[in-house]
Amino acid sequence: MPDLYSVPGLISALNEGNRRALARIISHIEDGSELAQPLMAVLYPMAGNAHLIGITGAPGTGKSTLVNVIAQEYRKRELTVAIVAVDPTSPFSGGALLGDRVRMRDLAGDPGIFIRSMATRGSLGGLAQATADVVMALDAAGFQRVIIETVGVGQSEVEIASTAHTTVVVEAPGLGDEVQAIKAGILEIADIFAVNKADREGADRTVMALKMMLGLGIPSRQILHHGRMLPVELPEISDEREAWMPPILKTIATQDQGVRELVDTIESHREYLISSGTRQVRDHFRAATELRMIMRDTLLNEALSRTTPDHLAEMVTAVAERKLDPYTAARQLIMI
Amino acid sequence: MPDLYSVPGLISALNEGNRRALARIISHIEDGSELAQPLMAVLYPMAGNAHLIGITGAPGTGKSTLVNVIAQEYRKRELTVAIVAVDPTSPFSGGALLGDRVRMRDLAGDPGIFIRSMATRGSLGGLAQATADVVMALDAAGFQRVIIETVGVGQSEVEIASTAHTTVVVEAPGLGDEVQAIKAGILEIADIFAVNKADREGADRTVMALKMMLGLGIPSRQILHHGRMLPVELPEISDEREAWMPPILKTIATQDQGVRELVDTIESHREYLISSGTRQVRDHFRAATELRMIMRDTLLNEALSRTTPDHLAEMVTAVAERKLDPYTAARQLIMI
Repeated sequence: MPDLYSVPGLISALNEGNRRALARIISHIEDGSELAQPLMAVLYPMAGNAHLIGITGAPGTGKSTLVNVIAQEYRKRELTVAIVAVDPTSPFSGGALLGDRVRMRDLAGDPGIFIRSMATRGSLGGLAQATADVVMALDAAGFQRVIIETVGVGQSEVEIASTAHTTVVVEAPGLGDEVQAIKAGILEIADIFAVNKADREGADRTVMALKMMLGLGIPSRQILHHGRMLPVELPEISDEREAWMPPILKTIATQDQGVRELVDTIESHREYLISSGTRQVRDHFRAATELRMIMRDTLLNEALSRTTPDHLAEMVTAVAERKLDPYTAARQLIMI
Repeated sequence: MPDLYSVPGLISALNEGNRRALARIISHIEDGSELAQPLMAVLYPMAGNAHLIGITGAPGTGKSTLVNVIAQEYRKRELTVAIVAVDPTSPFSGGALLGDRVRMRDLAGDPGIFIRSMATRGSLGGLAQATADVVMALDAAGFQRVIIETVGVGQSEVEIASTAHTTVVVEAPGLGDEVQAIKAGILEIADIFAVNKADREGADRTVMALKMMLGLGIPSRQILHHGRMLPVELPEISDEREAWMPPILKTIATQDQGVRELVDTIESHREYLISSGTRQVRDHFRAATELRMIMRDTLLNEALSRTTPDHLAEMVTAVAERKLDPYTAARQLIMI
């Protein structure tokens, strides 16, 4: 019987493909238990082989169904897939309508697929970090493709998707507003656009609107993201290859149409990232973002542990009653 | 001529109702300029009188139009209103369709209204803090009602709305999914529901779905939020009054229908908060959240200033190349 109570026991069970070990490791990481950091330290060097695919879009675009059929397509290609659903409207996260649940059964029982939903965390930034850690564990567990599904409207959710290697932005015609991505500012992070529900009226208009926007010249996400998180010099991208222009694909996920082409395009992007050196840049970007988040949270917890609950309560009350502004209060709390 | 270059000059111009002073103060705060902290320290004690109204909902619910008519209704009641649009799809933030822009003109030129849109910030948590600071400045400037409009899908956006005194969750029938709020988990933060576009088919179904959910007993947001942000004891809420049950109102913002009742309900909630002592709890909650965010960011900036760019780059590379896990790297960077 495998030992699922110690770090070495969990890791060796994981390496034998034990699913319970994987689920338990993820729970330790999510809960921040005593084993979380020792597990992370062992798992981290094991990760780095998976291709991370962010799939994001507004509610109603059908992106959960699309994630479902993309996973099935990868299974046909004999690649293993893990799905991490950060989207509260996703069927994978429990927000399913009956039809979605039925479709989800297609994925169950296949050892080459693993589905995990992330609960929304209380603390700001907590969800992004928890997601990064779980994705890392699935990568270390040997899944070849990890799909991160987020709802593409919120700032955190967009940022989570943008830490993937390939980010697919899902649009759908007739959602009341023209093209959600354009307004929500998530155009910059798209490597690929999928106009889903392409049998609906207005699909061509959506494709056209996206083409127009792309024609106007969207800043590449490298430029947007560089240096924003941490003041770090990143490896240079080779200029020899043409820059990647985000392709726009039509899909009808419910009828499995356009999905093969979409997966082909994700794979082309994967090859582009590797051959152009961009993948290395994205890995650096992700590392810098993670470091920043972890430093920030570690420092806060340390500072809080150095203060007393009474002093803390006193300062919160002083701020709430406007006797002290929060910046001054923060400085006083930090100095202790 | 007023002096708009020093803290005392800006504050005295602000107190005389100088709009340029207000705009400049907000820019200082948003940009984190040298004057930002001295300004905050003076403004903070001046704030605390405004009633903060969070309005959140998925794209397509028509919440921007609703914000517009709510502001107009408040002006009829001779209360001054500031609008802070954190929603990238809002006409106030530049994502307007032509029709919205036309409606926005209704608000322009009235000195009792101030509109400010927040750009999405690069850093996680940055948007929430910047919004809190700007809201505080508008409160200090004497606006009696401050409306914070966010797109109710993302985690940060929902959290921003939930720091208001009264949070209105906007739904609309026929958005493809049944009730977005239920799935997205924003039900817990609603003090009032507005089912907008109530002339559309399915409005009654949406109202019914919300009623059913409320009937199942939603945990109050006090319980959800307490202690989650900072381990602080909060003032107790008086048990003498009944707990607030979120009312569900139908509105047709484009026809100005149901808006008077909605504003009446917001005002009833305001009175409830004050008489029950809940307002004090929410102010403590907001203070605790702000303190936490500011401590975290201050600590990070301090730690980064103590390290060298070379050492930082070294650590990022070690993490990116998986020679070191980010937790270990963070600890090493912090110790310097």
